[in-house]
Amino acid sequence: METSTRWLTAEEQKVWRQFLTACYALFGAVDGQLIRDSGLPHGYYEILVHLSEAPGRALRMSQLATASTFSKSRLSHAVSRLEERGLVIRVDCATDRRGQIAQLTDQGMAALEAAAPGHVEQVRRSLIDALTPEQVRQLGEITGAMIAAASPDAASGCQEADVGCHGIEDDLR
Amino acid sequence: METSTRWLTAEEQKVWRQFLTACYALFGAVDGQLIRDSGLPHGYYEILVHLSEAPGRALRMSQLATASTFSKSRLSHAVSRLEERGLVIRVDCATDRRGQIAQLTDQGMAALEAAAPGHVEQVRRSLIDALTPEQVRQLGEITGAMIAAASPDAASGCQEADVGCHGIEDDLR
Repeated sequence: METSTRWLTAEEQKVWRQFLTACYALFGAVDGQLIRDSGLPHGYYEILVHLSEAPGRALRMSQLATASTFSKSRLSHAVSRLEERGLVIRVDCATDRRGQIAQLTDQGMAALEAAAPGHVEQVRRSLIDALTPEQVRQLGEITGAMIAAASPDAASGCQEADVGCHGIEDDLR
Repeated sequence: METSTRWLTAEEQKVWRQFLTACYALFGAVDGQLIRDSGLPHGYYEILVHLSEAPGRALRMSQLATASTFSKSRLSHAVSRLEERGLVIRVDCATDRRGQIAQLTDQGMAALEAAAPGHVEQVRRSLIDALTPEQVRQLGEITGAMIAAASPDAASGCQEADVGCHGIEDDLR
């Protein structure tokens, strides 16, 4: 690989470094706002969002790992913390002995609804309102291309996310 | 804040979620490649890069914290790991009793040079080569706007980074 390294041009290098700086600033601001105002790190908030949008507000832990930013071990830790706060409950899956289901509680839904306005305001301040509508559109195309470039992993992730656990609502509702 | 929440439009919401997905995919791929091929998480690699570019290949720990993605406590842990591997040394600052200096060793420079080609290849695969030259240019403007939106923090960070520790090279060279 060494002999044929295609080093970044000065412009590419600048964009890559700016991208890193911009991401760290954005994620730091988004995480900081959520922790300060809602006591929820961004990753925890996203777990609640994913659950809130799932049928029965419940997902298998393996689906949640795929949808979220967490490894399975870190997800397990995060869900335990959310359980302690009464925002999520975890139960065994009726149709799959290997599986466990995480479900958003009413208290978790209320916490999410309370946290959302401040979070959206921060996302606007750090990203959306900082860009022109044309740049928002461009960013959609750019991030689409980035996701496509990662497609071997993304595709297998989507397949895993499609594996449902039937009987969730019967178990939990 | 609740009464005046400017919720994201469907398009803005889509771009924000794609941005998150794209970033997780990118950072996962970049981190994974570096760990797999060089035994260096991306954050550690960046510490070596920052040191390699500093005068005398050395920075105060506070400057390194500002330049890197780490909090001071996590940076201290990371630098300890890099010290154990002989890639960095840490010494007291001659002109500031509060300060400590981290310096890249020759072995650290060699590790960085060995890791760089594979890392650059991954950055190309995950980002630069996935975009058209026009999109790379657009991303430069977009990330510039994001950094400007975070400017209160960025500005104070730059001030801190400007505080040099004179005598670094006398101490260490």
